[in-house]
Amino acid sequence: MESLKEKILIDGIALSEDVLKVDSFLNHQLDPELMVDIGKEFAKRVEGGKKVTKILTIEASGIAAALTTGLELGVPVLFARKKKSITMTDDNYVSQVYSFTKKEESDITVAKRFLNEDDHVLIVDDFLARGAAAFGLISIVEQAGASLAGVGIIIEKAFQDGGTKLREAGHPVYSLVRIQSLEKGKVYFVEEE
Amino acid sequence: MESLKEKILIDGIALSEDVLKVDSFLNHQLDPELMVDIGKEFAKRVEGGKKVTKILTIEASGIAAALTTGLELGVPVLFARKKKSITMTDDNYVSQVYSFTKKEESDITVAKRFLNEDDHVLIVDDFLARGAAAFGLISIVEQAGASLAGVGIIIEKAFQDGGTKLREAGHPVYSLVRIQSLEKGKVYFVEEE
Repeated sequence: MESLKEKILIDGIALSEDVLKVDSFLNHQLDPELMVDIGKEFAKRVEGGKKVTKILTIEASGIAAALTTGLELGVPVLFARKKKSITMTDDNYVSQVYSFTKKEESDITVAKRFLNEDDHVLIVDDFLARGAAAFGLISIVEQAGASLAGVGIIIEKAFQDGGTKLREAGHPVYSLVRIQSLEKGKVYFVEEE
Repeated sequence: MESLKEKILIDGIALSEDVLKVDSFLNHQLDPELMVDIGKEFAKRVEGGKKVTKILTIEASGIAAALTTGLELGVPVLFARKKKSITMTDDNYVSQVYSFTKKEESDITVAKRFLNEDDHVLIVDDFLARGAAAFGLISIVEQAGASLAGVGIIIEKAFQDGGTKLREAGHPVYSLVRIQSLEKGKVYFVEEE
């Protein structure tokens, strides 16, 4: 997605060889128009396949792109909670996710009544690095007996192994941009054929 | 907002006299079309005033409505973080917020570079009960020296004192629906003149 690459080159900051800061448009401040374009792009990637019935993401940074994707596909959006709220009184699907950026493990939770074996689920998230969140969300899809349309990722850090692990497990991964490396403050994208 | 009242009557669940569960369309599963309508409604409420330059909300449940409001008004959306991420390396505005539903106090954080004295800020959030989150966000607007366009609330629990405290402090409150009481599993709205 060329417009996203440009945005990353202009506004992204390579903080280290591992960490790309995109908080001016993606995970602290949001650019609403870009989010709409991202939603359209994810919708295009799953076009022609079995009809997606639900978008699944995880709070908080995945919500904006999941919402615009759901809007484009005309389906509800479900976000997994990281902490149980007192209004979550239902039976839940639960899975464990380790956050490397926050250095903590947390349970993620989805109420069972919102996901079942008739659903065909597109997972959407902002980053893919080691794949912890994606595999946690896939576990929830599997617990529900639902099928997976794929994993839509805004920025894949291709130098980490999450994308490889997902693809080797047979899951379709739709990454809008793939980063080859972050070196000396510069962002290098994977050259796609 | 009549369509929202209907949605609450059909899908909302009064769990107790204090707690309204709206997780099927507002804070766990999201109805994208309803979110767009909510964004349009907030935009309409601030029409004609000084031009809003930024939407401010708090993760996670405020993000969807903040995004659609920002889209409608053509301005960026900023969501306060509840936990510092390792990519938050800037100077931050910080304020303390107590969550009654999660029974814990947390710091909320906004990077200083995204908010300054030229901004005219519309705060958006899903619920207004005792006003803890709203006052925390207003403190951040004040720390930035920005001005406040108002506080946009999807569901105000008018039987709790947050709305009164905000209005008495002189802040415009734009509540899309106001709930008078939750009694014996039934939702009663405030009759507006």
